[in-house]
Amino acid sequence: MFRPEIKVIDCTVRDGGLMNKWQFDNTFVRQVYDALAEAGVDYMEIGYLSSESAFDRNEVGPWRFCGEKDLKAIIGDEEKKIKLSAMADIGRIEHQDIPMRSDGSLDMIRVACYAHQTDKAIELAHHCMNKGYETTINLMAVSTLGPRVLEEALADLAKSEVPIIYLVDSFGAFYSEDIEVLAKMYMDRLPGKTIGIHAHNNQQLAFANTISSIISGINYLDATLYGIGRGAGNCPLELLLSFLKNPKFKVRPVIEVIEKQILPWREKIDWGYFIPYMVTGVLNQHPRAAMTCMESDKKNEVTEFFDQVSSAANG
Amino acid sequence: MFRPEIKVIDCTVRDGGLMNKWQFDNTFVRQVYDALAEAGVDYMEIGYLSSESAFDRNEVGPWRFCGEKDLKAIIGDEEKKIKLSAMADIGRIEHQDIPMRSDGSLDMIRVACYAHQTDKAIELAHHCMNKGYETTINLMAVSTLGPRVLEEALADLAKSEVPIIYLVDSFGAFYSEDIEVLAKMYMDRLPGKTIGIHAHNNQQLAFANTISSIISGINYLDATLYGIGRGAGNCPLELLLSFLKNPKFKVRPVIEVIEKQILPWREKIDWGYFIPYMVTGVLNQHPRAAMTCMESDKKNEVTEFFDQVSSAANG
Repeated sequence: MFRPEIKVIDCTVRDGGLMNKWQFDNTFVRQVYDALAEAGVDYMEIGYLSSESAFDRNEVGPWRFCGEKDLKAIIGDEEKKIKLSAMADIGRIEHQDIPMRSDGSLDMIRVACYAHQTDKAIELAHHCMNKGYETTINLMAVSTLGPRVLEEALADLAKSEVPIIYLVDSFGAFYSEDIEVLAKMYMDRLPGKTIGIHAHNNQQLAFANTISSIISGINYLDATLYGIGRGAGNCPLELLLSFLKNPKFKVRPVIEVIEKQILPWREKIDWGYFIPYMVTGVLNQHPRAAMTCMESDKKNEVTEFFDQVSSAANG
Repeated sequence: MFRPEIKVIDCTVRDGGLMNKWQFDNTFVRQVYDALAEAGVDYMEIGYLSSESAFDRNEVGPWRFCGEKDLKAIIGDEEKKIKLSAMADIGRIEHQDIPMRSDGSLDMIRVACYAHQTDKAIELAHHCMNKGYETTINLMAVSTLGPRVLEEALADLAKSEVPIIYLVDSFGAFYSEDIEVLAKMYMDRLPGKTIGIHAHNNQQLAFANTISSIISGINYLDATLYGIGRGAGNCPLELLLSFLKNPKFKVRPVIEVIEKQILPWREKIDWGYFIPYMVTGVLNQHPRAAMTCMESDKKNEVTEFFDQVSSAANG
């Protein structure tokens, strides 16, 4: 589908970092950066923007912070080859720790929030816009919201200045039919704004739901290399670029960096389709319990996991 | 989606056997049989129906033949708990080697064919129907057919007595939009017949395309435990049953047999989403080259594979 408004945002380092506490070395991040630029991807989300006081650098890697020094270690002295994005969590970044866009290397800040944090997210997003950034709000865990709460959040977002609002399937719980209904609702309630999609792969539907989003008129598309990301992971970038018929996208650099940098991580961390992630997705639950199971020595005891999680869901 | 006409066919042993030459032991097959019956699945496709002269039992396991002795070793002397299906390939089964349905344990024979074999498939299917079997024709590799050839095959099938015709995405090349168009075409050209879907997962779309099929009115749905099957595998049964809202289906027995019998095979054979399978799917090619790559010591050299296969496709 060739539609010039479509933008692809790679979240490999940011969402993949949720699986290894952002312990990617600079060679990894630099090769991903080079590959994404060569592939024609529009944005690289290189991590979270956090205040140094929010986390300990002995425990998490540099991409939990995205300090200007960290960014410069990747970009070097050359001209930047691709727009850079960072995600901001409510409460983990102080306003004074966000540089003016003109003083730093980030182009876009995406504010992640739950529905009850919508007002705080709008405030933070407006602050980022005032500092010159392209800005989005990514409303998470929408699959858990009742219609009244969702309508209220969308009404608040509609009144904001924030131009891009994301539909986020945090738990990988949505079917394509859900995406169609929600995309229509978002576009209806948020006139004049651009809508984005961030899907998770618990039910092997991240790519399919991203296609449904495109068909429904959503234009900002998140993906990651080989689907790396929290739990079941995300929409695989190599599939998305192969689907999009825009000649500016090239798949080969993506395949190459998967071979060099992602497959080695496949030996160390378990993202992708596994029964525990499938179970939390089907039950519309946070993948927390599934991640704990996958990190334990009981990762193959999936019947016990199914029983625990379903009885908790029904009890 | 609760629609009483929907039937689920598990192809674990038949399609999974393409990855290990049907070397599943009787405990495996018996536990799958028990679990599918308990889960409420409608049919178990237990293998291929072949003449003994077509293959060597020293090279392939019993489920390449589905002899009555092989079947009895699973069913025992009890009443059969689930309908059994076998697939028949053109040229690998002699008419005289097919017992009357009343003399054996199979309920359904599914005749697989390429478009140029449609006449032979109809002849074999009619023969099976005359022997009392439920019968389908599974037209393979539809993604490679031009409209004239496909129309001709469908016109021939429309004139046949065979009541169930399958749409088969052998190469995992279809997007949901393709499924919608083809489902409509099949239903239009094959009035009065039931349509089935058999999807492959090269682009992580087997489940999504099966959902699209359901929405488009297709009623016979193929799936396998944990998606086991040739190359990228099939639509995962545990996802399909979780999606279908018919209360007769139970997911827990499926999860349990995956833990006991399928996860151990996961250590030995590589079905599922891997870059070589993705590449042949995107290029609409037979997974043969990808399977050779995956069985070699170069399975992680995916850039070289991409270059070889794409230059062959463009050359």
